[in-house]
Amino acid sequence: MRTGVIGIGHGKFGRREVTVQELAFEPFREALEDCGLHQKDLDALIVGSSPEYHRQRSLSGVVAEYLGMNPKPTFLVEAACASSSAALAIADAYIRAGIYDTVAVLGVQKMLELSTPEILALMGRVGDVQWESGFGTTFPGYYAMFAHRHMHEYGTTREQLAAVAVKNHHYGAKNPNAMFQKEITAEKALASRMVASPLRLYDCCANADGAACMIVTNEETAKKAETPIWMAGLGSATAPMSVLRREKLSEIPSAIDAAKEAYKMAGIGPKDVDVADVHDCFTIAEILAYEDLGFCEKGGGGRMIEEGETHIGGRIPVNVDGGLKSKGHPVGATGASMAVEAVKQLRGEAGERQVDGAEVALMHNVGGIGQYCFVNIFRR
Amino acid sequence: MRTGVIGIGHGKFGRREVTVQELAFEPFREALEDCGLHQKDLDALIVGSSPEYHRQRSLSGVVAEYLGMNPKPTFLVEAACASSSAALAIADAYIRAGIYDTVAVLGVQKMLELSTPEILALMGRVGDVQWESGFGTTFPGYYAMFAHRHMHEYGTTREQLAAVAVKNHHYGAKNPNAMFQKEITAEKALASRMVASPLRLYDCCANADGAACMIVTNEETAKKAETPIWMAGLGSATAPMSVLRREKLSEIPSAIDAAKEAYKMAGIGPKDVDVADVHDCFTIAEILAYEDLGFCEKGGGGRMIEEGETHIGGRIPVNVDGGLKSKGHPVGATGASMAVEAVKQLRGEAGERQVDGAEVALMHNVGGIGQYCFVNIFRR
Repeated sequence: MRTGVIGIGHGKFGRREVTVQELAFEPFREALEDCGLHQKDLDALIVGSSPEYHRQRSLSGVVAEYLGMNPKPTFLVEAACASSSAALAIADAYIRAGIYDTVAVLGVQKMLELSTPEILALMGRVGDVQWESGFGTTFPGYYAMFAHRHMHEYGTTREQLAAVAVKNHHYGAKNPNAMFQKEITAEKALASRMVASPLRLYDCCANADGAACMIVTNEETAKKAETPIWMAGLGSATAPMSVLRREKLSEIPSAIDAAKEAYKMAGIGPKDVDVADVHDCFTIAEILAYEDLGFCEKGGGGRMIEEGETHIGGRIPVNVDGGLKSKGHPVGATGASMAVEAVKQLRGEAGERQVDGAEVALMHNVGGIGQYCFVNIFRR
Repeated sequence: MRTGVIGIGHGKFGRREVTVQELAFEPFREALEDCGLHQKDLDALIVGSSPEYHRQRSLSGVVAEYLGMNPKPTFLVEAACASSSAALAIADAYIRAGIYDTVAVLGVQKMLELSTPEILALMGRVGDVQWESGFGTTFPGYYAMFAHRHMHEYGTTREQLAAVAVKNHHYGAKNPNAMFQKEITAEKALASRMVASPLRLYDCCANADGAACMIVTNEETAKKAETPIWMAGLGSATAPMSVLRREKLSEIPSAIDAAKEAYKMAGIGPKDVDVADVHDCFTIAEILAYEDLGFCEKGGGGRMIEEGETHIGGRIPVNVDGGLKSKGHPVGATGASMAVEAVKQLRGEAGERQVDGAEVALMHNVGGIGQYCFVNIFRR
């Protein structure tokens, strides 16, 4: 028994002057229309989100009502920036157990109704509040440490980091759902203001509002769809929240573990991946992902971007939807966005950013600084 | 394939001067010791909680690290006051799918590090922020409306409401984990200060810190346990968050739907239930539960408590662990607490509050004002 994706929807990411319910409705309706289903055909709604950014509490309950899902079950799943990947994994479990036949998985996040200081106050407390947050370990701070360590160990350069931003903005310019649909130059990235050394403004993704949705179903129903996309491999793992307890700062151990599990379940290796979406919350994170996913050797991530191996036409195109860097990062919606993009690529519906003949797509969604990681492999 | 509960743990509910990680550790260790397992024997940790009450973000990641669960997967599940029931249902899905063999389900909530005004500000936004919260629809307000309507339709009395509080405090006095281990009189309840007419102080449960944990596993492994308890029926449903969209205020429609589903799966009816834990966030809620679960006819809930049918020795003893009313209501931990109490009853380990020969136990966990409801049936 395997789970198939039959419907997808993706809203516009960015600053959205709508309620969180309205934000959710856009991709939900699109996903239903995509597969020709109605709310009555769904057995449950699983919402992936980090609820604390919303003024509305009991988010999945309010969203379920607005989407016309009552009396079907719903709940919210949170795993920081990997919340909707966790929701997708849970949907797969319900379907493979035969408990539900068809489920809507919705990633939704309205962050920008809060002010930047409010968002930072919340994000600062993703790190261990008892032992680390007090020392100023915000997200840019954590990833800056990872970047410095990677530079020290492997000679990764500022220019290589900037090349990630340039690539992702290049493809994001072709993605109508991206927050920033514009190209940038390496010069501009390298001259942008410092956020946390060595990471500058263009090394960082942006807070955003956004939502994306998938309709997933059992094998029997999926086979009736025109182009079902199969969830062939799912992996998920954790690592210590505290960097104090990490052995190395130049890798995300949960990503390595999750990838192994996903490859094993799918019966493939990194060389079989045709296109990937990875969690580039900061440029260094994409370089770590290349290595953690086995796309290249340890320490080879900087070289990989520099040599264009992850551009379209390269060995493994990565983040050709623009990545978090260009799409924006509405935390709870990011995993669903990656999954939707993977399905588009495998259906051949990615337009200008299509990777020709893609048969295997991988997504890599990191929660926080790697206290969670979900890696999913999709196949045509 | 059915899921079995083999380990249980329950911490002390109330005001706890410990971190949320420490709060989680108490029942987790107890549950592991209860079944003789070690962290390495678990495939995942599923945390049920309403995360917004904690200063720590990314709660399941931080808790997983503290509990020694890395690199095993974890995520948090939120469905308001039914969060850990949702977590339990998800664990059941993973196990019945054969994805995980053994899972720890942890309900944990540290509410009292916030001030009462802060908690009220959060709770007030469980109701629909766009259309209802602005009119002052807090929890006591919602349930007060339900109580007035029930009184109007069925002649339910203040004395009957107070009788629920008296019963639950009577049994809570025998529960060492309860926040309030003391009996109260009907006179005291009826004279307590008004919160939201007709609900007085003793009609309301209290905010609390608390945690409870279950180790659940597949049929094969559970059969090796001394007294495995089986998850025989699970039901879950939703209802509109907005009371504006409810047809009746004298019932919780999601509870009726969830109960039907749970009874059907278990192949039993209400008459077969030997002992139940129901969601008495307010005294009226317990009366609604009697009716919604089919323990009595519509409108008969007041009579049922008055005639002692839900005391030990009565037809269906309800909340003989003290209920939310006496145990306190650490929202994310309440479902897990109910499940642990059900297992204790079925194992014959409930001490002074044991219902002799209990073979079937039911739990009814309402999220919010019924936008979620989970009903689970356990069997020896």
